[in-house]
Amino acid sequence: MSLRARVLYPFQSENTQEISIQEDEELVVFDNNPKDGWLFGENSQGHRGIFPASYVEIIGAHSESEPTVCTLGSGGSPHFTAAGYTLIRALPTSEDGQSSWDDPDTWYDSLEQEVDRSDGQSSYNNQADLTRNKPYLDNHGGSSISHKGSMVSKNLNRFSSFVRSGVEAFILGNVPMMAKIAESYMIEMGPRGPQWKENPHPFTCTIEDPTKQTKFKGMKSFISYRVTPSHTGRPVYRRYKHFDWLYNRLLQKFTIICLPHLPEKQATGRFEEDFIEKRQRRLILWMDHMTSHPVLSQYEGFQHFLLCTDHRQWKLGKRRAERDELVGAHFMLTLQVPDQHQDLQEVEEQLNMFKAFVKKMDDSVMHLGQAATEMAHKHKATFCRDFQRLGSAFQSMSHAFALDPPNRLTALNKAIAHTGCTCHVIGKMFSEQPKYDLFLMLDKLSLYQGLLGNFKDMIQQQKGAFAKLKETQQMSDEGRTEREEVDRMQKRSQMLCFALQAEMDHFHRRRVGDFQGMMQAYLRQQVSFYRRVSEQLESTLLMYDYL
Amino acid sequence: MSLRARVLYPFQSENTQEISIQEDEELVVFDNNPKDGWLFGENSQGHRGIFPASYVEIIGAHSESEPTVCTLGSGGSPHFTAAGYTLIRALPTSEDGQSSWDDPDTWYDSLEQEVDRSDGQSSYNNQADLTRNKPYLDNHGGSSISHKGSMVSKNLNRFSSFVRSGVEAFILGNVPMMAKIAESYMIEMGPRGPQWKENPHPFTCTIEDPTKQTKFKGMKSFISYRVTPSHTGRPVYRRYKHFDWLYNRLLQKFTIICLPHLPEKQATGRFEEDFIEKRQRRLILWMDHMTSHPVLSQYEGFQHFLLCTDHRQWKLGKRRAERDELVGAHFMLTLQVPDQHQDLQEVEEQLNMFKAFVKKMDDSVMHLGQAATEMAHKHKATFCRDFQRLGSAFQSMSHAFALDPPNRLTALNKAIAHTGCTCHVIGKMFSEQPKYDLFLMLDKLSLYQGLLGNFKDMIQQQKGAFAKLKETQQMSDEGRTEREEVDRMQKRSQMLCFALQAEMDHFHRRRVGDFQGMMQAYLRQQVSFYRRVSEQLESTLLMYDYL
Repeated sequence: MSLRARVLYPFQSENTQEISIQEDEELVVFDNNPKDGWLFGENSQGHRGIFPASYVEIIGAHSESEPTVCTLGSGGSPHFTAAGYTLIRALPTSEDGQSSWDDPDTWYDSLEQEVDRSDGQSSYNNQADLTRNKPYLDNHGGSSISHKGSMVSKNLNRFSSFVRSGVEAFILGNVPMMAKIAESYMIEMGPRGPQWKENPHPFTCTIEDPTKQTKFKGMKSFISYRVTPSHTGRPVYRRYKHFDWLYNRLLQKFTIICLPHLPEKQATGRFEEDFIEKRQRRLILWMDHMTSHPVLSQYEGFQHFLLCTDHRQWKLGKRRAERDELVGAHFMLTLQVPDQHQDLQEVEEQLNMFKAFVKKMDDSVMHLGQAATEMAHKHKATFCRDFQRLGSAFQSMSHAFALDPPNRLTALNKAIAHTGCTCHVIGKMFSEQPKYDLFLMLDKLSLYQGLLGNFKDMIQQQKGAFAKLKETQQMSDEGRTEREEVDRMQKRSQMLCFALQAEMDHFHRRRVGDFQGMMQAYLRQQVSFYRRVSEQLESTLLMYDYL
Repeated sequence: MSLRARVLYPFQSENTQEISIQEDEELVVFDNNPKDGWLFGENSQGHRGIFPASYVEIIGAHSESEPTVCTLGSGGSPHFTAAGYTLIRALPTSEDGQSSWDDPDTWYDSLEQEVDRSDGQSSYNNQADLTRNKPYLDNHGGSSISHKGSMVSKNLNRFSSFVRSGVEAFILGNVPMMAKIAESYMIEMGPRGPQWKENPHPFTCTIEDPTKQTKFKGMKSFISYRVTPSHTGRPVYRRYKHFDWLYNRLLQKFTIICLPHLPEKQATGRFEEDFIEKRQRRLILWMDHMTSHPVLSQYEGFQHFLLCTDHRQWKLGKRRAERDELVGAHFMLTLQVPDQHQDLQEVEEQLNMFKAFVKKMDDSVMHLGQAATEMAHKHKATFCRDFQRLGSAFQSMSHAFALDPPNRLTALNKAIAHTGCTCHVIGKMFSEQPKYDLFLMLDKLSLYQGLLGNFKDMIQQQKGAFAKLKETQQMSDEGRTEREEVDRMQKRSQMLCFALQAEMDHFHRRRVGDFQGMMQAYLRQQVSFYRRVSEQLESTLLMYDYL
């Protein structure tokens, strides 16, 4: 059934999918379920398209018949299938979610299916891929693509995350209080400012033993990981697709939390040893970040992922998580913030400093990632090859010396041949060393590149909130809005500030520990590596002392 | 005055400068001073050109006038200046030698003059350069150009060294005994076969303190080395041009001795630190080889070079050395060999094995030289740059971290910045290391590449002698030559064998010691290098322990 809506704020269309709307204009809305903050409707000039849901208010039912365009959908969700309007396909609607995840036949679907099939049902997964597979530090550094935006198809990415995240709706007071809110996350004042109250039941979680399994008599293969949370000590077995389901629930729910990116999907080479090792290492880092976060670690869906061992319970838990109403803007309703006034101007300055920090750190992460990638490549190619070439030359020299009959088998010839072997060994050591240091550094840098990308969006959200508040304040000064509306908006802005500050606090705490650990591990490995090279050469040198 | 000659052995012309001659043919010879084993004359068909001096015997004076072609010379030596016949210009005639070296005005001539001037007088120096500057292990390995042939202009290099060295003349009995022979070098039977009797007064010699000096009020610059022989302990000061004079005397005199090549000339960058260091290192290796050789170390011209401090005495000594008659083929007259018969067939087999050894070792030296050159290049370029890039990335990370106000100056930031410095230091260490190991290895390989090149020629000489001996034996069997002639030739061949075997013995002894020393020095430096890298990293790691 279509509805009537009144425009609260003007919006200027920026592409053919959108329509421009004027303040106080009346619109026809064809479905009042905003998808990622957008509604589909028709303006007073008869143009059809999308516009931000939070810019309008529904004022009643519309008498005319529904537009014929809605029947054009060829498959999947019947909503908003107008030509060129692909936004909805990118969203994990409950229908998609259920058919993909809860049908017993697809419970063990291998990743191939997720990646290969291109019908309507799986387009969500494909869409998510598009964004997630952006290169970041995996090949040669690469740009820091914002990952937060993976819920929205690419052509809408240019919209401010302020709108997309639901933060705007919250700031504008368009997220009504709900009857019962079971969840609650507390922000408290710590020594360095607002911080999340710690999870009262902290735990860690191991991810071990990636094992190749098959089904359908070997037709389908997948890797299963043993996931063991410390608070139960009871392992569950999870595949990448289960991690991916969880991750997408997290993306839905926690739009104002800096989510660690899940390691990227990969269509080919998934069963190669290097890939499996790398994915495991990165899943461990991801899990480590998840369990360390006071909000994420307590999320019911996450606990379900960590604890559920029963097939039927798993399905029920998933359905429950997918029906969670406290997602996106509504998640903000679960926050309890300190009863303390913060000077918003001071917070804005703090935010600007953090923005500069994020930019500089993001650049540094990229540079370090490039340097480490290059060094790892040189280890595997150049250094290794050069030592082996030297080794072969020594061996050839020893063969030549064996052609002098009186000196055919002297200690010198043997020592030179052995030196050749040593060079080959050292070449191999160079080639394998990145596994023990540079690759681990790159794993961590990749995680941080994702987090920093998130913060860029989150800073945008906060800046949008500040702008909207200032705008409303000015409207109030001009008598166009009530003073109380400004106060309420200020309170909501404050709440958002606390959340961002708590996230900044958490990030910095993790960062200090993570980078200390990363640097120590790298240096320890390097010390050991060069010492072992030196020892190899030293024992070879001894062969010459007995000549 | 022109002479008549009778052809003893047929010779087939192989280029336009040469003429073919038939056995028993009568020739006109325009000058009976063979230049490097060649005479210029006219055959019975009226063709003029050069032919091997040892293939003919002079039978009397020629009545006709001298050919007009001899008056065409435009400068320098009046001999053999026929168009296209450049052989003689490449020879250090005594006129050239005297004008270059004994004129007081040129006593301090700088190397620029030797290299730059292109008139007739210095063409010898330029010619010598042509051959000596062939790339060998200096740039990227390169081919092993025979250095022995530097006395002959390039277009004659394809002639067997059998002819060029005077060995053929000696084997054919065309080197008459001389009245008084002051020099004498003894070959004795050692445990591994014939060997040189050691120099009864062995000594070593240092080359130190290369110092830039100027003359003509700074117009001319040159490098002077302090050369101190151990048997006098009294330093003499020598320039590269003095080494070069000595080296050319050695080339003249010791055609059957494996002479160490003098480090190459270089027209530009002679005063750059790297070049000076490299030349000094290579002069030291050259000198070391000279003093270790029982024959070379006792050569009067060498002793003169090492001992003379007086300007006037220097000139006299040089003139004496240049007038030495026991050069080339005549040097063979100074040898005293064991009174012991060797089976020439066995010797020939031994020679073939040595030939295979020389080829294999020459290849190995080239490969090792290439590998070491490549490794040195990577040290200076790749390794250094990659570490410095990593260092800059760490420093950039530390700057980023300083943008987080509460953690502006933490121990972590300082430790990361220090890690950046350490990477820069290690980069510099990588860049400088080749000076202490690979460059020294390349010096020694370069010396050996020269020696192996010599042996290729010397083996050719010996093979030529064997062939000539067999040919004469066959002639004797056919009754065309007297049996006694064969015996005499066999005796002379035997003498040559002893000389080559003594050289092989000396080479192998030096080789074992040189390569042991080279490998030990390389490995010691490498052990120390990687240990120091490890230590640098370890002390950096300590900065993280106090966090």
